[in-house]
Amino acid sequence: MAKLVSNKQVILRDYVSGRYPTESDMYVKTSNISLKVPHVQGGQGEGPCNNIVLVKNLYLSCDPMMRFLIMDTSHYKMTKYEYCTPGSPICGYGVAKVLDSSNPEFKEGDLVWGLTRWEEYSFITNTKSLIKIQHTDVPLSYYTGILGMPGKSAYAGFFEVCTPKKGEYVFVSAASGAVGQLVGQFAKLAGCYVVGSAGSKEKVDLLKNKLGFDEAFNYKEEHDLNAALKRYFPQGIDVYFENVGGDMLEAVLLNMREHGRITICGMISQYNLPEPQGIKNVMQIAFKRLHIHGFTHRDYDHIVPKYLDFVLPYIRQGKLVYVEDIVEGLENGPAALVGLFNGRNFGKQVIALAHQ
Amino acid sequence: MAKLVSNKQVILRDYVSGRYPTESDMYVKTSNISLKVPHVQGGQGEGPCNNIVLVKNLYLSCDPMMRFLIMDTSHYKMTKYEYCTPGSPICGYGVAKVLDSSNPEFKEGDLVWGLTRWEEYSFITNTKSLIKIQHTDVPLSYYTGILGMPGKSAYAGFFEVCTPKKGEYVFVSAASGAVGQLVGQFAKLAGCYVVGSAGSKEKVDLLKNKLGFDEAFNYKEEHDLNAALKRYFPQGIDVYFENVGGDMLEAVLLNMREHGRITICGMISQYNLPEPQGIKNVMQIAFKRLHIHGFTHRDYDHIVPKYLDFVLPYIRQGKLVYVEDIVEGLENGPAALVGLFNGRNFGKQVIALAHQ
Repeated sequence: MAKLVSNKQVILRDYVSGRYPTESDMYVKTSNISLKVPHVQGGQGEGPCNNIVLVKNLYLSCDPMMRFLIMDTSHYKMTKYEYCTPGSPICGYGVAKVLDSSNPEFKEGDLVWGLTRWEEYSFITNTKSLIKIQHTDVPLSYYTGILGMPGKSAYAGFFEVCTPKKGEYVFVSAASGAVGQLVGQFAKLAGCYVVGSAGSKEKVDLLKNKLGFDEAFNYKEEHDLNAALKRYFPQGIDVYFENVGGDMLEAVLLNMREHGRITICGMISQYNLPEPQGIKNVMQIAFKRLHIHGFTHRDYDHIVPKYLDFVLPYIRQGKLVYVEDIVEGLENGPAALVGLFNGRNFGKQVIALAHQ
Repeated sequence: MAKLVSNKQVILRDYVSGRYPTESDMYVKTSNISLKVPHVQGGQGEGPCNNIVLVKNLYLSCDPMMRFLIMDTSHYKMTKYEYCTPGSPICGYGVAKVLDSSNPEFKEGDLVWGLTRWEEYSFITNTKSLIKIQHTDVPLSYYTGILGMPGKSAYAGFFEVCTPKKGEYVFVSAASGAVGQLVGQFAKLAGCYVVGSAGSKEKVDLLKNKLGFDEAFNYKEEHDLNAALKRYFPQGIDVYFENVGGDMLEAVLLNMREHGRITICGMISQYNLPEPQGIKNVMQIAFKRLHIHGFTHRDYDHIVPKYLDFVLPYIRQGKLVYVEDIVEGLENGPAALVGLFNGRNFGKQVIALAHQ
């Protein structure tokens, strides 16, 4: 039997529903783990258990969607595709190195990204989400962001769902976030006029000066979001890439052009409320003949190869920028995750555990 | 100069906003009218004024959308395509006979449907909405309903916007109304399972026993609309044809299937409120990857010939039923219009002024 090593973990204390998560909703614990895929002992099935991949986690991703993984979602009537259980490690996306595998698709030394757990080493049995990393000339952490789930979300949500046309007026909320910063840059590549909203002066400067947005504004400094949107879109909005919901969605509905499209990627302003805010301007959907599309990256696994072919050259040529906010050490994970819902992160929030 | 005849009119007293309209918001008045298109007297332009059609109104239509024509819509940021002015006759759709015309497309004796005014005789200068009636073997009043704007709305909204597939689960609210009763029957023609909601036992009976809906329920008797929809759609709703908004939309969002479509034709429950109700379940749009489409019949003028080719044979063969609630006399117009917002009408509400 392989020797045991210590395995630091971030454990979910209990489900967090209807309020902001805090660091004390999680705790750090050290367990022991054997760095070998377990074997069935004796009998007909003797040998390694089927379809298990043991990984060393390198980078863990903090994503707004994780809010749903740590809540009791029964009142949302959601079908969960992955979830955390109280007393077990937080789950989420990450980049990892395969140490051992009984799944023939993965072998020792492979680098992968996909759903893993907040611990140094993980046994992954739900291997469907794992994607082998082929390109290592770019930062590995990018596979939690521009080359991972957020990148796929931005590409599918913007190009496939929004179907933007050259010259259209595009608005992106949470525009400096993991997805928003890409949507804005994709909109410029598509020949659109793009404005982003974010929650600090520094983020607004980033959008305008580094990420190429035509305009950006700090929503926290606007008393009247409707007036702010009128200022930046006197002619109205053709495409809204929705990341925040609530008051911003209310204001956007008033400022959409006829036949405009709204793609709903997320609504981060709503995730921590006891109950979601009611949206009053829904009749605008009829008045303006709007098209609203909910989407999830999970429906777009098939576009990953096409997306990588599209995005890698831009990254290598420096034509796409990706801003990451990397904290070192698993023990800093709870603060990083909590900070996501207060807008503390500056760009894509990543936790670095090991660099290989 | 042609002799003057009396012209009974229903006049809008003042804009009605944020409350239910009442009969006293309108009054009946008798004016005089010359039954000839006016002439320019003397000078270079002498002759009939251009592009005016004088009609005798035969049937006037009561439509929920008229609520927007009699309100100050500035807070909705609506572009009005037609509106009533306080002190002038109510405007709306109707069927009329041409008595005189300076528009070469219309001549004396033609029957037309389109936007007219609530009076015995009207000069119509905005002739773009007028459509010449070619088929008179069906009731003329049908051109306010199944063969008019509501018919076009139901056909375009269901077949073009909802794009239903055989075997899908369809829900229609306000299902015994001018549009709803057609959507339900179209859904059956398309091979769908269709359930309708309405506001009385008699309407529910109509839906189930005369209009061929698979099921129907009285929303006023359901304390929990979510539970009611679960009962009728244990497997969820693929297509929702939205006519009412508010609580019904909240419940529908919880009961949509993944990738379901919602087509918003109207939201009659919201038109008389001081401000519209907030919809809390909008995150379901993302969770379930829903597609929501606002639409208006005004974008579908081009489908009228195709629609008539489709619908007339069904009417002639008795395979489509159209239920009308016809009141006689212009003086009964205000009560009929007001009744529409209380659900007093049983089927399409029409006011008959003259039968030819």
